[in-house]
Amino acid sequence: MSYQKILNTIEQDLSYKDVYGEVASYIPELAKIDPKKFGMFLYCVNKGKFEFGDSREKFSIQSISKVFTLSLAMKLLGEDLWERVHVEPSGDPFNSLTQLEYENGIPRNPFINSGALVIADILVSNLKDPKADLLELVRKISGNPNIDYDTTVATSEKSTGYRNYALVYYMKALGNIKNDVETIVDFYFHQCSLSMSCEDLAKAFMIFANQGKMLETGEKILTPKKVKRINSLMQTCGFYDEAGEFSFEVGLPGKSGVGGGIVAIHPEQYSVAVWSPILNKKGNSELGMAALEKLTTMTGLSIF
Amino acid sequence: MSYQKILNTIEQDLSYKDVYGEVASYIPELAKIDPKKFGMFLYCVNKGKFEFGDSREKFSIQSISKVFTLSLAMKLLGEDLWERVHVEPSGDPFNSLTQLEYENGIPRNPFINSGALVIADILVSNLKDPKADLLELVRKISGNPNIDYDTTVATSEKSTGYRNYALVYYMKALGNIKNDVETIVDFYFHQCSLSMSCEDLAKAFMIFANQGKMLETGEKILTPKKVKRINSLMQTCGFYDEAGEFSFEVGLPGKSGVGGGIVAIHPEQYSVAVWSPILNKKGNSELGMAALEKLTTMTGLSIF
Amino acid sequence: MSYQKILNTIEQDLSYKDVYGEVASYIPELAKIDPKKFGMFLYCVNKGKFEFGDSREKFSIQSISKVFTLSLAMKLLGEDLWERVHVEPSGDPFNSLTQLEYENGIPRNPFINSGALVIADILVSNLKDPKADLLELVRKISGNPNIDYDTTVATSEKSTGYRNYALVYYMKALGNIKNDVETIVDFYFHQCSLSMSCEDLAKAFMIFANQGKMLETGEKILTPKKVKRINSLMQTCGFYDEAGEFSFEVGLPGKSGVGGGIVAIHPEQYSVAVWSPILNKKGNSELGMAALEKLTTMTGLSIF
Amino acid sequence: MSYQKILNTIEQDLSYKDVYGEVASYIPELAKIDPKKFGMFLYCVNKGKFEFGDSREKFSIQSISKVFTLSLAMKLLGEDLWERVHVEPSGDPFNSLTQLEYENGIPRNPFINSGALVIADILVSNLKDPKADLLELVRKISGNPNIDYDTTVATSEKSTGYRNYALVYYMKALGNIKNDVETIVDFYFHQCSLSMSCEDLAKAFMIFANQGKMLETGEKILTPKKVKRINSLMQTCGFYDEAGEFSFEVGLPGKSGVGGGIVAIHPEQYSVAVWSPILNKKGNSELGMAALEKLTTMTGLSIF
Repeated sequence: MSYQKILNTIEQDLSYKDVYGEVASYIPELAKIDPKKFGMFLYCVNKGKFEFGDSREKFSIQSISKVFTLSLAMKLLGEDLWERVHVEPSGDPFNSLTQLEYENGIPRNPFINSGALVIADILVSNLKDPKADLLELVRKISGNPNIDYDTTVATSEKSTGYRNYALVYYMKALGNIKNDVETIVDFYFHQCSLSMSCEDLAKAFMIFANQGKMLETGEKILTPKKVKRINSLMQTCGFYDEAGEFSFEVGLPGKSGVGGGIVAIHPEQYSVAVWSPILNKKGNSELGMAALEKLTTMTGLSIF
Repeated sequence: MSYQKILNTIEQDLSYKDVYGEVASYIPELAKIDPKKFGMFLYCVNKGKFEFGDSREKFSIQSISKVFTLSLAMKLLGEDLWERVHVEPSGDPFNSLTQLEYENGIPRNPFINSGALVIADILVSNLKDPKADLLELVRKISGNPNIDYDTTVATSEKSTGYRNYALVYYMKALGNIKNDVETIVDFYFHQCSLSMSCEDLAKAFMIFANQGKMLETGEKILTPKKVKRINSLMQTCGFYDEAGEFSFEVGLPGKSGVGGGIVAIHPEQYSVAVWSPILNKKGNSELGMAALEKLTTMTGLSIF
Repeated sequence: MSYQKILNTIEQDLSYKDVYGEVASYIPELAKIDPKKFGMFLYCVNKGKFEFGDSREKFSIQSISKVFTLSLAMKLLGEDLWERVHVEPSGDPFNSLTQLEYENGIPRNPFINSGALVIADILVSNLKDPKADLLELVRKISGNPNIDYDTTVATSEKSTGYRNYALVYYMKALGNIKNDVETIVDFYFHQCSLSMSCEDLAKAFMIFANQGKMLETGEKILTPKKVKRINSLMQTCGFYDEAGEFSFEVGLPGKSGVGGGIVAIHPEQYSVAVWSPILNKKGNSELGMAALEKLTTMTGLSIF
Repeated sequence: MSYQKILNTIEQDLSYKDVYGEVASYIPELAKIDPKKFGMFLYCVNKGKFEFGDSREKFSIQSISKVFTLSLAMKLLGEDLWERVHVEPSGDPFNSLTQLEYENGIPRNPFINSGALVIADILVSNLKDPKADLLELVRKISGNPNIDYDTTVATSEKSTGYRNYALVYYMKALGNIKNDVETIVDFYFHQCSLSMSCEDLAKAFMIFANQGKMLETGEKILTPKKVKRINSLMQTCGFYDEAGEFSFEVGLPGKSGVGGGIVAIHPEQYSVAVWSPILNKKGNSELGMAALEKLTTMTGLSIF
């Protein structure tokens, strides 16, 4: 069956009416999203593009941004990075403080909030204007110069993101945060507020399916070894405490965000992004998980 | 480079002299193993076989047996299994009680000790002679009718395995163990005592690289869906709290044991077993990890 | 107001009809107790005795026995004891394994189950017949040669006490249990099964109100320093995770058991025992707590 | 022996030369204190006063201030207070976040940092000028109008008190902090910076030894019931995770601070303050603990 037919089937078979979760409510601005939104964009290494629904509408990428900031930090620091953040799955919800306490302020991996905040700290230490540099990277690899931060969302998060403040202060007490707390939190809430469409995300994540090179230009963004590390991390840690379930249901490295987006890649085959704002209990897009499961089942392509 | 040349390079480049870990000492019988042992066996879906060193010498497979008992339990119960053991990485050492306490006696996954003990309980409930049935399965898929339990090792473990007794009693207190404690622990220590060579293990694990079918006969042992689940679990949970590191370094689903064995598979390519008894701090074979890392690097084949 | 009038008032004002808890159900034999039972016995250092209700009916003293075994262990070992069990309040339920894990198998205090099991281990190591020696001590200090173990209760506990087995095996794994698990657990369930009346308990605990000496004979059982240590432990750790509340409401060192008994002492004034089998959520006798609170309020005597 | 002779003996027998701890270093300003300082002040309900050494030199009272703010909060709120902070010993270090996570943001007691920060929040909610009101109370009950905050110390703490910020943000995320974080932390660091002498502290704590009334004027500051609650809390929770040890060694309700001060009371007998800046591993004054132990041993007065 052709990719387009598979996407058509997914669009027809799945509906927001059949899911039971809820739109993220802890960030006031995200709670306003229309729960009916549903879109998907598939981008193949042979340059084929397939899509349906709201695939070109921008939404808040939230935690998906952690893959971009990690990429930037790995370009800057290389292996030294792993002294400040580990690479193991956490087995705990994405914002646990307990684990930090027992592990002396070293987060389990860069995709839980504490880990992403350490990455933010590293970027703030090493870049003159980290917000601009992040934007530049994301615009470049997605090929869309119009991508930007949504400052309304960033402000909305800042006014309620007490737990993230707690994480940063706690790691600062334990010596794993070097910069001013406000600066880090401000950068972090901005990265989460990045507004991108499924198309943007699928195109941006193509570097992880294509050994670190941009597909159209061949430009090298990351070494294959760094891509392998990032893909491995997405596989084991990309879905909070539902990583094992996603790994089985979908069988691809990927990353989700509470805005309802999920991106996944099949190395040397394709990158794919899906968006539906209704979340399951673990905080991952319910329809998005189902769509990706259907995709790998129907294509017969999974890494396992 | 041919597979045999790659294996030769691995054998030449790696030596027990360059590693710093120690042979497992907490099981008296295992502490006696010669630390110089080193062997590897690679079995391809195109039926090629490549090996070096002590690849045909039997050793105690220990936790690798958890993949066999899980396979048996999945054949018996299907999806009902997942009410009694979860599928998420644990983020904790393999024998943690804390996690059990906070999760009401449901182990995080079937590859930590508590999870394997629940699987043992399920087999004891559903099979008349689980020890015989497990042996039958392992002999069949490895094609070696001489594989057997090493009762000296089993007895040795039983006399010191207090922590496993604690896990079983604790889960029994929380209602997740149905049978007599002694029976379960006896079965568990027997499964761990299975004595197999790299050749045996590589052949037995071929079903996970070959969609659930035996390579030589084509006999179907597990459905492709069950194989996908098991491979996914090996990927995310196969190496205790070093799963993330192994996933990156090697990039293949696999399972290790404190006897120094590691088995890994590359779906639709090969299964591979390696043995060296010296363990790193996380309890995985130090030379075994290095050998597999070299294998995927030199072949350029990783699932990422 | 005279002590007898105060006890009369307590008997009249408090009723099992006004409480909302339940009789302990996890030990089958204890679940059969008549919830209407209610008795109290007050024993003064000036030799006055006051009582009401079921004050002379025997019941299962359960955790109250931990004070007797601790006394025996302190007579045998002195300060060396505190290397194997600490003296701090636990802040966790009486049977937590988590705390043990983080503190390497050293229980927080001798009144949580793990601590009492270490004390049992010490007695088993140091006494030829610990069951006989414990019985001898309890009969002597209570002046009642008819006190005995209730083997039906002991057997009932043994058949369901999986969590205690888990605690012992876990501490044995961590090196803090020296003897055979069955022997310790058998001793522990026997000590808990001691059957005593309020009169027996008040008389036995008089040594803690009287600087370690028996009131009638003046015989010295414990040094004043050891009595101070035990009283201090009863004050801070005698009521599981309700120690703080009891300390405030009653303001006396004491110890409770899930059989519904509570004993408390006012140094150099009196010892007092109360029994009502209905327990609050924390596992302490609801009417017993109320009775003691009323006693200290009406007498105006509290250590604070 | 007279009280003065006992104090003389304490002064002669104990020396900073015999202790092995260190002056608190995590607050820069406190690290500058002369470790040789040593003073004690005993204030009896019969109005006798006894002292030695640096008994009239002011030092930073730090956590001892938590007793004053709790007193103020209890005057304002009564029993409603206990919905926002519990009354049980914590069994964990004074600044643990883990416990907060498992108990949904309700601190175990008002003397661990998280509990004191909730008390600070309550004062900020209920008082127009909490700093002024606290100062007024402390000046009044100590009879010293010159007591004041040491703003250098407060500023010093604020610049390094990241863990306290983490606690406040975390409890705010869980709904147990109502006011602005900066305001609470500012108040908290000011209360800790209160500069008082042993004489000041002994006089101020007399209300807890005297049923809530000031000794000289007879003015009622707290009801006897509230005093009983506070004394009970000092007994079970006044010394972080050394509460059990202090309860045994000294046998009096008390409170310590990392400035090296300890205050204790013997109900209806005396209040006593001691100061020596060298701390043991648990953060309590090493010489201070020894001095109080000697006092209760030599007087033969302990609540047990």
